[in-house]
Amino acid sequence: LALTDRSHAAALDAADPLGAYRERFVIVDPSLIYLDGNSLGRLPAATAARLVRTVTEEWGDGLIRSWDQWIDLPTRVGDRIARAVLGAEPGEVVVADSTTVNFYKLAVAALDARPDRRVIITDVDNFPTDRYVLEGMATARGATVRWLEVDTVAGPQLDDVAPLLADDVALVTFSHVAYRSGARADMTAITSAAHEVGALALWDLSHSAGSVPVALGRSNVDLAVGCTYKYLHGGPGSPAWLFVRKSLQSELKQPIWGWFGQRDQFAMGSAYQAQRDLRAFLSGTPSVLALAAIDEGVALVEEAGIAAVADKGRALTDYAIALYNAWLADLGFLLGTPRESEQRGAHISIRRADADVLCTALVGVGVVTDFRRPDAIRLGLAPLTTRFVDVWQGLAKIRDLAK
Amino acid sequence: LALTDRSHAAALDAADPLGAYRERFVIVDPSLIYLDGNSLGRLPAATAARLVRTVTEEWGDGLIRSWDQWIDLPTRVGDRIARAVLGAEPGEVVVADSTTVNFYKLAVAALDARPDRRVIITDVDNFPTDRYVLEGMATARGATVRWLEVDTVAGPQLDDVAPLLADDVALVTFSHVAYRSGARADMTAITSAAHEVGALALWDLSHSAGSVPVALGRSNVDLAVGCTYKYLHGGPGSPAWLFVRKSLQSELKQPIWGWFGQRDQFAMGSAYQAQRDLRAFLSGTPSVLALAAIDEGVALVEEAGIAAVADKGRALTDYAIALYNAWLADLGFLLGTPRESEQRGAHISIRRADADVLCTALVGVGVVTDFRRPDAIRLGLAPLTTRFVDVWQGLAKIRDLAK
Repeated sequence: LALTDRSHAAALDAADPLGAYRERFVIVDPSLIYLDGNSLGRLPAATAARLVRTVTEEWGDGLIRSWDQWIDLPTRVGDRIARAVLGAEPGEVVVADSTTVNFYKLAVAALDARPDRRVIITDVDNFPTDRYVLEGMATARGATVRWLEVDTVAGPQLDDVAPLLADDVALVTFSHVAYRSGARADMTAITSAAHEVGALALWDLSHSAGSVPVALGRSNVDLAVGCTYKYLHGGPGSPAWLFVRKSLQSELKQPIWGWFGQRDQFAMGSAYQAQRDLRAFLSGTPSVLALAAIDEGVALVEEAGIAAVADKGRALTDYAIALYNAWLADLGFLLGTPRESEQRGAHISIRRADADVLCTALVGVGVVTDFRRPDAIRLGLAPLTTRFVDVWQGLAKIRDLAK
Repeated sequence: LALTDRSHAAALDAADPLGAYRERFVIVDPSLIYLDGNSLGRLPAATAARLVRTVTEEWGDGLIRSWDQWIDLPTRVGDRIARAVLGAEPGEVVVADSTTVNFYKLAVAALDARPDRRVIITDVDNFPTDRYVLEGMATARGATVRWLEVDTVAGPQLDDVAPLLADDVALVTFSHVAYRSGARADMTAITSAAHEVGALALWDLSHSAGSVPVALGRSNVDLAVGCTYKYLHGGPGSPAWLFVRKSLQSELKQPIWGWFGQRDQFAMGSAYQAQRDLRAFLSGTPSVLALAAIDEGVALVEEAGIAAVADKGRALTDYAIALYNAWLADLGFLLGTPRESEQRGAHISIRRADADVLCTALVGVGVVTDFRRPDAIRLGLAPLTTRFVDVWQGLAKIRDLAK
C-alpha cells in the first residue's frame, strides 16, 4: 500500500490499540474531520450523565450537605491528573481557577521566593496569556522580563537559554509544548540549567498534559500549570491544574489568600493561616460542575494509559508529516513543527501566507483546524479521538484547496 | 388565626404572589425543610436540561466553533445580573473567576489607583475570604488594614466608620449584608463618606444580590463583587460577578493580565493592551458550563422581579422573627439579626451557646440550617424557594430541640 492511499490510513486505524476509544466520545457528525482537539477536546460520552447526576443528585437532592464530598474535588481530581499524566505525586497537583490565574499565582510566588532577583526569562513566542501575566507582574513589582528570541519552528533551546541565565534570574518559564509550532522543549535540561543559577522553573503544560510523556518528578520541575480542556477533555473553559513540587510547598506563598487556602476553613478565624500543603494554593470556591466534567475526561486518559496515548500522538503526527512531505511540501508550505518526534507534541503547524483563507475554506469542506497568526494552519491530533483516516482526509483537503 | 398556628403560615403561602416559583425548582425530598439557601441556592428545574444542551449541542456537536457564542458569556450573563438584581448598567458587570479572585482584582486595582494612600478599612466580622485577601494584599504591598470593630448584630455603621476615615485611606470595603448576622449596611451613606475623603468603596454583595433591593448606580458604588451560588441559584462553586462603575473602568487596572482581558485577543500580540471596557477585568478562559448554569438561575430571579423577591424575603424574615419572639426568645437565645427589615437581608441568625449541637440535631429531624461560629444558627430564607410553612416548621423544630 502506498502511504498516500486512504487504505493505508484505514489499515493504521485497524491496527490502532486505542481505536476503540473513539466510541467513548460523542461524535454527532461522523463526516466532520475534527483536527482541533488541541483547542477543545471532544466530549466524553459519560460527561453529560455525570453532570446530570452531579446536578440532580448532589446539588438538587443533597444540597449543601454535598459539600462533604465536593470539598476535596480540587485535590482528588488533581491527584488523578498527577498520577495519570504528569508523573507527579499525590498532593502535588490541585485543580482550580483558570490557567491564567494559576500561572499568576505561581509566577508571583516564585518571584517572591527570590526577593533579591528581579529577572524573569521567557520567550517571545510563548502563549500570550503567559506573556501578559509576566508583563503585568513585572510592571507591578519592578521586575524585568528578559525575552528570549526563538526559532519559530524549534522553540526554546537550552543553548539559547543558557546565555541569558545569571544570578539575577528569579524565574525561568516556558511552554513545554509550544502552542503554535508544537515544538517540545527539553524540560529536564532547561530546568536543570535554571537551578544551576538558583532560579526556579515554571512550565506551562497546556499542550502537553495528556498528549506526551511527562515526568514532573524526575524532571525536577519546580512549578507547572496546564489547562484541562484540550487533551484532558474537561470541556470549554474548564478550570486548570497547578503543580508545586512537594519540597517547595512550605517555602512558596501564593498571593491570593482566600478561604479555600485557609488551614481551618470553617473556623473562619481572624487571621489567615495557610494550609500546610498544596491547598494553600487554592483561593476561592471552585466550580463543582466544572470539576465533575474534568474528572470524566481525565478518567478516559487514565484508562487508556498515557504511554499508549503518547504513542498514538507520535504515530498520528508522523503520518501527518509524511503526507505533508508527499502532498504539501511542493506547494509553497513550510512545516512549522520539528520533524523529530521527541521534539514535538501532538499537533503540527503547516505554514503558508494564505493560511487564514485556507482555514476558512477548510471549514466549508468539513475540516476543522485552526489558524494561528501570522501564517499557520494548526492541526491538533488528539490521540483518543483522531483516526488516521481523519489525518489522511484533512491533509488531502488541504492539498486540494492549496493547489 | 394565631401567628403561631401552622394554618397561619399556610395562609401566607396561599397569598404569596411568588408561591408558584417553588415549582420551577427541583424538590427531590418534599419533606426536607431547607433553610440554607444563602449557602447554596436550590437547583432550578431548567438547569439540567440547559447543561445537557450546552454539553451535547454546543460542545459535542459545535465543538470549537461554539466559541463564537461562548466568547461573550461573561458579559452577557453579567449584563443580565446588572439589570435583574444590581441596579447597574449594561457593561458594568462581568462574570468570571471566584468571588475571592474577583475581590483580589478589584482591591488591588483600588489600592493601585491611590498610590499615595496605604490604608484599607474593613470590619473584623467581614467574610473571611475578604479579610484574608486584604491581609495578603496589605502584606505584599506595604499597606495597612485599619480594622473596624463592629457590633456582632448591627454590623458596620456609618457612625463607627466615619472616625476611621482620613486622607490616608485608599479603600473602604464591607459586605453589604453580613454573612453571619444578616445585617444590611447603609451602602449609599458609607460610600459617600468614603468618597468625601477621596477613598474608593468596594462592596461584597454575596448575601444581597438576589435577596434585597440594590442600586449600585444610584448608590454611587465604585466597585462590587458577589457570588452566584446563593440567591442567584448558579450551582455549587459557580463563578462570581464583579462590578466596576463605568466612569472608573478606564482608570483602574486589575493585576492579573491575561488573554481574555487583551484588546484583540486572537491577534495574540506581543504586548498586553487592556480592553477598553470592563472586559479588561477578565483574565483567563471562563468555564462555559458554569456560566450556562448561572444564566438559568439568574433568569428565574429576573422573571420573578427583584422587587417581589425582596418583598418576599422581608416577609419571610419578619415571620421568622415573630416566631422567634413567640417561641425562642425565652429559651436563652439571642436574635443575632437586626429587627428592622431595612437593616437586614434574607437570612437571620439565632444565637445560643449550643448552636453547633442544635444544628446537627436539626439535620436529624429534617431541617437543614447552618452553624456559624461561635454560636449562630443561620436560617437562610431564599425567597423563591422557601415557604412560610418551612419557616414555621423549622422554628418549631428548633423550639422542640432547644427546650
